[in-house]
Amino acid sequence: MPDLIVTGSVGLDTVTTPFGKRAEQIGGSATYAALAASKFARVGMVSIVGVDFNADTLSWLASQVDTEGVEISGKTLRWTAKYEYTMEEAETLDTKLNNIVDYVPELPEHFASVPFHLLANLDPDKQLKVIEQIKSPQHFIAADTMNFWIANKKDSVIKVLKHINLLVLNEGEARQLFATPNLIKAGHAALSLGPEFVIIKKGEHGALLFSNRGLFSIGGYPLETVTDPTGAGDSFAGALMGFLANQYQEAANLSINEPMVRKGLVTASAVASFTAEGFGPEILTKATINDIKERYDVFKQLHQF
Amino acid sequence: MPDLIVTGSVGLDTVTTPFGKRAEQIGGSATYAALAASKFARVGMVSIVGVDFNADTLSWLASQVDTEGVEISGKTLRWTAKYEYTMEEAETLDTKLNNIVDYVPELPEHFASVPFHLLANLDPDKQLKVIEQIKSPQHFIAADTMNFWIANKKDSVIKVLKHINLLVLNEGEARQLFATPNLIKAGHAALSLGPEFVIIKKGEHGALLFSNRGLFSIGGYPLETVTDPTGAGDSFAGALMGFLANQYQEAANLSINEPMVRKGLVTASAVASFTAEGFGPEILTKATINDIKERYDVFKQLHQF
Repeated sequence: MPDLIVTGSVGLDTVTTPFGKRAEQIGGSATYAALAASKFARVGMVSIVGVDFNADTLSWLASQVDTEGVEISGKTLRWTAKYEYTMEEAETLDTKLNNIVDYVPELPEHFASVPFHLLANLDPDKQLKVIEQIKSPQHFIAADTMNFWIANKKDSVIKVLKHINLLVLNEGEARQLFATPNLIKAGHAALSLGPEFVIIKKGEHGALLFSNRGLFSIGGYPLETVTDPTGAGDSFAGALMGFLANQYQEAANLSINEPMVRKGLVTASAVASFTAEGFGPEILTKATINDIKERYDVFKQLHQF
Repeated sequence: MPDLIVTGSVGLDTVTTPFGKRAEQIGGSATYAALAASKFARVGMVSIVGVDFNADTLSWLASQVDTEGVEISGKTLRWTAKYEYTMEEAETLDTKLNNIVDYVPELPEHFASVPFHLLANLDPDKQLKVIEQIKSPQHFIAADTMNFWIANKKDSVIKVLKHINLLVLNEGEARQLFATPNLIKAGHAALSLGPEFVIIKKGEHGALLFSNRGLFSIGGYPLETVTDPTGAGDSFAGALMGFLANQYQEAANLSINEPMVRKGLVTASAVASFTAEGFGPEILTKATINDIKERYDVFKQLHQF
């Protein structure tokens, strides 16, 4: 039985950055999140790929995570994007939603009873459908979102917040959702809507964690070369939830406390830095627990005074 | 005798932010830096004000710092600016340089022998003239700069770097000076040009310290209300140098080491947060050592894991 269920998209990404280009590389929110989480915990993945999806890639994925929740139908989602010199934000050149449009996530029986769930970026109405299927009486649910859903389905995004324990979003999304330029205000506003923990990701500037225990702040991992930031945010959420699910397995109780989330956030930042260092999930998949621990220790030095 | 000499501008600022407006309020790089430094050390100020400068304001300034190095001549520098909703960057509406154009800083005899010098934002050629006047055989010199000088006098800015121990600049300036979007690369490039310590200020995202001892990173102080960021950067540099000059007085030796600069940087971030909380230097001047220590302790909590 998996320790953590990750629900989200699988797609084929064509990405150009100042360092090169990759065509039709495996991507999607569930892919990055599940691969990152699999460093720490047994992961069950809930998603959809098309009948056009490469069979070898799918079996490779099945060797990393439990893919029983991955449906095969229609044509795979495609995303084409470009990063400029500053690497700040992807410019989407083309999106073909394909099979993701009518997809409704369905949790296999043995996934529904797992207490840890990550709802990676996906239509908030579909995230709500997943929440309905969770059967574990005690649970810890995290969700990510994206500017598109905030702009077009804000009510559903807010509804998701009522049911989750942890919200992860980036700084632009936080400002947009709470209509304020001030991230501290935005974080507190998010907390008041339901989640115990709210994390605002700030890319190269690190991340902020809000909870009733007060604020935690971490800088970005000092990378000299960011090759392709695609999936770094999803890897971050996945690694964090994988870390927490693993802590839970080890301690055999569900009280996820704030100091634990702080440690998870630092670990997740280390994992996300590997994703950003290579194209697609190329370096993420290679990073070992020892590599991650080394970067965790760099974070220790980074903030000591 | 002062512990620290601050050289820079004094001006009259007219600033509009979403929270209100102040007209002809005392400003300028030397004003903010000297006032911040005066929390920790005895400060000598080197600058110029016009004959039109308010006499009461000048005597108030003289009650805070040694103004023997403040020349009175011509008409005072004026700056008019506006901050938009995001508070990110000031939009300069008007600058009247007035007496600052032909001003050449002159250090009084008892200032020249002081080992600690802060060259607050000023024409780099004038900063070089100050460096020539420093007579203390051992010294610790810090300098700030600004986008205008990088664009127009880059060679002089680089020349200043060869003579200083500590460079303070903001993230936009760092990217501009070293033609890279990557702050880690920019910091290392700055180090290679002379200074032992390089600090990149990132506003709400905190600051980075580069040295041969490795990287230090601190988040921004979690302010819910930024009223007017004017002078926050100058206060930061002033507080840091005031803190270091004070440490030197207490320990009676000039070896400014990296752990000391880390502590100074955190202290300086706390001081700068007070500046940003009010218009002009209104809250900065009121902040006590205890207020600053409280925020220092918040930083301790903020980064603990």
